[in-house]
Amino acid sequence: MKIVIVGGVAGGASAAARARRLSEEAEIVVIERGAHPSFANCGLPYYVGGEIESRDKLLVAPIQLLRERLKLDVRVRSEVTKIDPQAKAVTVKELESGKEYTESYDSLIIATGASPFRPPLPGIDNERIVSLRDLNDADRMRDLAINGATQAVIVGAGFIGIEVAENLIRRGIKTTIVELANQILPPWDQEMILPLQRHLIAEGIDLRLGASAAKFESDQDKINVTMNDSSVIPADFVVLCIGVRPDSKLAAEAGIECGPRGGIRVTSQMETNIPDIYAVGDVVETKCSITGDPIQIPLAGPANRQGRIAADRIFQRDSQYRGTQGTAVVGMFGQTAAMTGMSEKVLRAKGISYEKIYLHPTDHAGYFPGAKQMLMKLLFSPDDGKILGAQAAGTSGVDKRMDVIAMAIQAGMTVYDLEEAELCYAPQYGHAKDPVNMAGFIASGVLRGDQPIIHASTLADESSAGLFILDVRTTGEYAKGHIPGAVNIPIEELRDRIQEVPADKSIATYCQVGQRGYLATRLLLQHGMNARNISGGYRLWSILEDPS
Amino acid sequence: MKIVIVGGVAGGASAAARARRLSEEAEIVVIERGAHPSFANCGLPYYVGGEIESRDKLLVAPIQLLRERLKLDVRVRSEVTKIDPQAKAVTVKELESGKEYTESYDSLIIATGASPFRPPLPGIDNERIVSLRDLNDADRMRDLAINGATQAVIVGAGFIGIEVAENLIRRGIKTTIVELANQILPPWDQEMILPLQRHLIAEGIDLRLGASAAKFESDQDKINVTMNDSSVIPADFVVLCIGVRPDSKLAAEAGIECGPRGGIRVTSQMETNIPDIYAVGDVVETKCSITGDPIQIPLAGPANRQGRIAADRIFQRDSQYRGTQGTAVVGMFGQTAAMTGMSEKVLRAKGISYEKIYLHPTDHAGYFPGAKQMLMKLLFSPDDGKILGAQAAGTSGVDKRMDVIAMAIQAGMTVYDLEEAELCYAPQYGHAKDPVNMAGFIASGVLRGDQPIIHASTLADESSAGLFILDVRTTGEYAKGHIPGAVNIPIEELRDRIQEVPADKSIATYCQVGQRGYLATRLLLQHGMNARNISGGYRLWSILEDPS
Repeated sequence: MKIVIVGGVAGGASAAARARRLSEEAEIVVIERGAHPSFANCGLPYYVGGEIESRDKLLVAPIQLLRERLKLDVRVRSEVTKIDPQAKAVTVKELESGKEYTESYDSLIIATGASPFRPPLPGIDNERIVSLRDLNDADRMRDLAINGATQAVIVGAGFIGIEVAENLIRRGIKTTIVELANQILPPWDQEMILPLQRHLIAEGIDLRLGASAAKFESDQDKINVTMNDSSVIPADFVVLCIGVRPDSKLAAEAGIECGPRGGIRVTSQMETNIPDIYAVGDVVETKCSITGDPIQIPLAGPANRQGRIAADRIFQRDSQYRGTQGTAVVGMFGQTAAMTGMSEKVLRAKGISYEKIYLHPTDHAGYFPGAKQMLMKLLFSPDDGKILGAQAAGTSGVDKRMDVIAMAIQAGMTVYDLEEAELCYAPQYGHAKDPVNMAGFIASGVLRGDQPIIHASTLADESSAGLFILDVRTTGEYAKGHIPGAVNIPIEELRDRIQEVPADKSIATYCQVGQRGYLATRLLLQHGMNARNISGGYRLWSILEDPS
Repeated sequence: MKIVIVGGVAGGASAAARARRLSEEAEIVVIERGAHPSFANCGLPYYVGGEIESRDKLLVAPIQLLRERLKLDVRVRSEVTKIDPQAKAVTVKELESGKEYTESYDSLIIATGASPFRPPLPGIDNERIVSLRDLNDADRMRDLAINGATQAVIVGAGFIGIEVAENLIRRGIKTTIVELANQILPPWDQEMILPLQRHLIAEGIDLRLGASAAKFESDQDKINVTMNDSSVIPADFVVLCIGVRPDSKLAAEAGIECGPRGGIRVTSQMETNIPDIYAVGDVVETKCSITGDPIQIPLAGPANRQGRIAADRIFQRDSQYRGTQGTAVVGMFGQTAAMTGMSEKVLRAKGISYEKIYLHPTDHAGYFPGAKQMLMKLLFSPDDGKILGAQAAGTSGVDKRMDVIAMAIQAGMTVYDLEEAELCYAPQYGHAKDPVNMAGFIASGVLRGDQPIIHASTLADESSAGLFILDVRTTGEYAKGHIPGAVNIPIEELRDRIQEVPADKSIATYCQVGQRGYLATRLLLQHGMNARNISGGYRLWSILEDPS
C-alpha cells in the first residue's frame, strides 16, 4: 500500500500518523508546499505578538521526528501540480529546483487546506498586504511588527482578524479593523459579541464596522488604504483576514467533485467521487452534524478527526465522520467568546423553528472572590426542547460551559437534560446550580409554560400595541436607567400593589438579569394576568440599545 | 395548601422558592434551627481562612429577602422536635425562649441535612474540638484562627478537611491532618491524588495517613491529641471532618423509613414512605444514576435539584430525580481534583467489570505559554465502551474535562463518543485533540484491540512470569530513571533494532506518558509480537512507585 498525502498540516499530518499506526508496511509520502509539515497554525497570531516567543514551539512535529519516529517520507517545499486518477499518479514540483516528477499512489489523501481570500481590488498585489497562513507569513508579519511599523490595517473581524489585532496591539502598533458586517465575529449572533466589541475599542483598536477597503496604494514606505467612503487610512502594512477559500483547484482539475463554495465533496468516510482519492480538513465540504446540511467550516479539531478517518478507511475500517457541530472559541484581551451548534442567524436563514433564552450567570459562586459575569444564550427547539446551539461571552468559565453544551448537542439532549446535569461544584469552580443548569431551568420553564418570555428585540413593536412594561427592580436601580415607558414596582412590593398592574393588558416584566422578572411573571400569571418575562432583563436590553 | 419545610439551607431553600413560584396561594413555613436560612455552606472554609472576607457574603438569601420577595414564613432558631404524621403536624421549639408549639401541614418537606460525625472517643466533648457545619461553627473557628492559635489538628482528609487545612495554613497555623485511610480524599482512587498529597506536604501540612486519634485531653489553653500510636500532638483546636451522618432521627422517630446508613428512603419524586412527607438533600438516601444502587452522597447540586422536585411533586408535577452521579471537585493550594461517576474502588467493590486508561494531557496546547499537565483516568465498560467514571487532578482545566465527561455519562455515552466530541479549541483554551478526545482515542484503541494495555500496578506480578519491559524513550530519559529491568530502545531506533526484542516473550512497552509507547506497541503488534503499552507510562509508574 502506497499512500500519498498532499498537505502535511493538521488533517494531512493526522492521516499520516494514523496510517503508520495502522500499517508498518505502508509507504507513506507526505508532500507539503511549505517548509514545515505539522506546524501549529492556530498559534501563528501569538508568535507575531510575542506571546509565543520561540518559533520552534510552533513546529509541533519536526520533519526529523516524522521521518524517524513514523517512517514518513516527508517532502517539503514540494507542490502537487496535477492529479491523474487514471494513472493513479500525481505530478510533484520541487519548489526550490523547479524540477518535476511523477509519484504513483494506491491511495491519495488531499489535505491542501484553504487559502486566505484576496479580494480583486486595485492594488491588492501590494507587497505590504499580508495574510497569515503559514510560518513564512508569520515571520514576515512579525518582522514588520518589530521593525518600526507603527500602524496596521486588518481587513476582516473574524477569528484571525481579532487574534491578529490583539497581537499587534501587544506590539504597540496602532491597529484599525475594517469589517464589512455590522459586527465583529460574524459566526456569533450580534448581541452576544457587542460587549466584546466595546472591549476592543477600549483596548485602543480603531474598529470600522459596515466598512470596506476599496483600493490600496503605495506611498513611500507606507500603504494607503482607501475606504469605500473615500476616507484614507495610512498603514505600514495590511493584514487580510476575510476568510479562506478551499484550495481545491488541483482536485477540481482532476474531475473531483466540489460544492458551490469550492469545498471537495466527501462521504462520511472522507471518500471523494473518484475511487482511492480521499480529502480531509479545510479543503472539504462537510455536513452540519445537527441538520445534515453541507457546510464549510475550517476548524482544526474536525480536520484532525477527518485525517484519522481517511486513514481508517484506507485500511478498511469503518470510522465515520459524524459532521461538524461548529464548536469554536476565540480569546482577546482576556475576553472569551465561544459557541457550539447553530446560531440564531443560521436557524433563521434555514427556516428552522427555534426559541431562545438569555442569562447572565457568573463563572463561579458570587460569594467567592473573583466571580465574573458572562452572557449566555441557548437556542432550542420549541417542539421537543432539543438543544440547537449555544453561545457565551465573558472572561472565565465561558469555554467550559460551551464544551458541556457541545457534548449535550452531540448526544442529542434536550433542555430538560440540562436541568439534570450534575457538574463540578465548589465555590471557586462553579455553582450548585451551574450556568448550564440555569439555562436548562429557564428554557424548560419557557417550554412548560411556567415562564412565558418576550424578547427585548421585539419590545418596540409590542409596545406600540399597548404592552405594559413592569420594572420590578429597586427604585434605585430604576432611577439609574430603565426601559422607556416602564413602570417601577419593586418585586418586594408587587403583591401589595398588584392593583397598579392593568389586568387587561399584556405585561412584560423585567429586572436586571431575569431572576426577579421571572418571579414577577409567576406571580402575575397566578393572578390570571397575561405576563411574560423579558429574557436577559435590563442588562441585555441595554446591550441591544447601545451597541456602540 | 400549607407546606412546612424543616431546614432552610440548600435543599430546603430550593424547595421553598420553587413552591412559591408554583403557588402564590400556598402558605410556606420554613423552620430553621440555625440563625440563617440559605447560607453558603460550601463557602465556610474560605470564610475561616479569610479568602471570603465578609460574613454577609455567605448569606445567599437573607431572611428579609425570603420574607419579602418570596413571602416565606421563615422561622429561624427554631427546631422541629416531633413529627406527627397522623395529625399532620410538627412540634416546633423556639430555641431562644424554649417555647414549644404545634404547626400543622398539608405537605411536609424534611431537609434537615447531615451532621459532622463525632466519634465516641475519650474527651470528644472538649470545647476545643470544633466542626464546620454552619455559620456559628465558622465564626468560632475563625475566631480561634485569628486570636492567637498557632497549631491545629484536622481529623479527616476528605473535601472539608482539605479545604479547612488550606485555609488554616493561609492563617499561618501549623496544621496536622490525621486520616485513617492511606490517602487523602477517599472518594478518589489513590493514584489520582498522590501528587496532590505531595503538594499538601510541600505547603507545610503535617499529613498523618493510616493514623487516628485515640483521645483528647485539655492542657491549659491547649488540647492534646493522643494518636493510636501513642504519640501526642498538641493543638489550640481540633477540627472534626470525618464525614457526616444524615440528621434523620426526627424522621425515624415518626416512622419514616431510613436506609442502613441513616438516610431517609425516598422515591424519585422525593416521597418518603409516609403520605405527604417528602425529604431532600443530605438527609436522604438517593440512588446512583449509573447503577441504580442506593447511595448517600452529600452534595449541594443534588440537594438543590431534589428541593425543586419535592415542590414540583406537591403541586402534581412529574419531575423525577434521576439519581446522583457523584460529580465532585475540590481545590487546594492552586491544585484541583475532580471526578464524576464511579471510582475504580467502587467498581471493584461492586464487582462491576471495567477497564481503565490513564493519560497526562496539558490543559491547553503545549506550544502556548502556561500549559499545565494533569493526570486523567477514564473508567469504562470493556463490553460496550460505556463510560463508568472519570477522575482528574492538576491545576487548570481539570473541572472542565470532568464536566464534559459528566455530561457524557449522563447521556449514557461511550468512549467512542468521546473520540467524536467537538470541543472549544484555540491554543490558550484546549487542544485540536482535547484531553477528552484523547481519553476516547486511547480507550477505544484498547477496546478495538489496536492498543492492548498493561497496568503499572500489575507489572511486578507479570515480570516474574517473564515479561520483557521495553523503554522506548531517549537514552537520556532512560538514564534519569526507568522501570527496573527495562531495556531501552528509543522509538526512533526500534524498527532497526527489532531483533533485540524477544519475539517469544510477552512485551510491555512504555514511554514518559504513553504516546511513544503506543506507537511501539503498534509497531511490535504488526511484527506479530505480543505487545502491550503500559497505560500512563513512566510518569504514572513513578507516582505509584513513590507515593510519599
